[in-house]
Amino acid sequence: MNVFVIGANGQIGKQLVERLKQDGKHEVTAMVRKQEQLDEFKANGYQVVLGDLEGDVETLKQAMSGMDAVVFAAGSGGSTGADKTLLIDLDGAAKSVEAAQANGNIKHFVMLSALKAEDRSAWPDSMKPYYVAKHHADRLLEQSGLDYTIVRPGALTDDAGTGKVNVDNVSTGEIPRADVAAFLAHVIGRQEAANKAIDLVKGDTAIEETI
Amino acid sequence: MNVFVIGANGQIGKQLVERLKQDGKHEVTAMVRKQEQLDEFKANGYQVVLGDLEGDVETLKQAMSGMDAVVFAAGSGGSTGADKTLLIDLDGAAKSVEAAQANGNIKHFVMLSALKAEDRSAWPDSMKPYYVAKHHADRLLEQSGLDYTIVRPGALTDDAGTGKVNVDNVSTGEIPRADVAAFLAHVIGRQEAANKAIDLVKGDTAIEETI
Repeated sequence: MNVFVIGANGQIGKQLVERLKQDGKHEVTAMVRKQEQLDEFKANGYQVVLGDLEGDVETLKQAMSGMDAVVFAAGSGGSTGADKTLLIDLDGAAKSVEAAQANGNIKHFVMLSALKAEDRSAWPDSMKPYYVAKHHADRLLEQSGLDYTIVRPGALTDDAGTGKVNVDNVSTGEIPRADVAAFLAHVIGRQEAANKAIDLVKGDTAIEETI
Repeated sequence: MNVFVIGANGQIGKQLVERLKQDGKHEVTAMVRKQEQLDEFKANGYQVVLGDLEGDVETLKQAMSGMDAVVFAAGSGGSTGADKTLLIDLDGAAKSVEAAQANGNIKHFVMLSALKAEDRSAWPDSMKPYYVAKHHADRLLEQSGLDYTIVRPGALTDDAGTGKVNVDNVSTGEIPRADVAAFLAHVIGRQEAANKAIDLVKGDTAIEETI
């Protein structure tokens, strides 16, 4: 599949495109926001395009031309305010979904979400605006008519990946970003993962055995 | 109809419940956030309940018990940050819609939105987070299965109401809050307004003649 990774310069996005390139199972195109990021990805041998989640849907649709699958791994991050949470985590995701719908050939849309995004009662006060954005991004993907997989990792760490996870319904837990990237790479294009939301924390099951 | 007004202590909400009480066509119940607001509404002869848009859907559903129509006129306002925009203007609206769905007897959900909330290209930079919230609140109401009317007024003023408006598709314009309140009161329960989004600016058409 031709896989389009939105947010390829993010902490998980970077590990995802690297893994996809190493695996060689899919052709990966990285979408990044800045020219210097594009130059860096190009220098490292990636197919890469500039794209702006604060721009219009039509431009995103054109950037997705020829793609079969989309991974939304973008996020405004912890260093910006709730205004960017609205613009990137919610509306940037919404525009990506709309662009995929308009594309007409996207067979799989994989959303990087967050553990418990579906359950308002579980949101810590300090993180509520972020969870509101993720919650509604997930919901609009579910209602989009696209084949989707929503991946909901627990608290992200920079620990080394183990290749082992737990995808049962869980209420809390940690997971290395490397394993999130590996899991995303695993589910792309997998029929068994279609139209599911999957919790993800560290565990004892090899990623290849999960789904 | 028994009409439930969410955000009854807001600038438009206050004028709406006053008008509904004067008109006598509907029975109005005001939802407010604080005890002192409840006391004030009670002292002025209103049916009033406490309700918290940052609380859970079940409590909102219980507050809507016995109601036939809901008006969402709440907003976090300009003095708070984008975090409250996410929690109130988006997720508070979403919870109100979910509570109305769960209620099962709500025949009409009227959403106070904003002119051009449907058109990202029209959003001024400084107001984008607000419009993202209104945009997605409108969309999830449209997809809720409830009979809805979305009212999208232009720039709000404190001018005296004229009783005359323009509901044609317009790109810009002003409108007194008093006329927005009068228009909301007019559309509640009107079959002709069902499942429509209506722009609203000042104009030459008597509100009763619009729809």
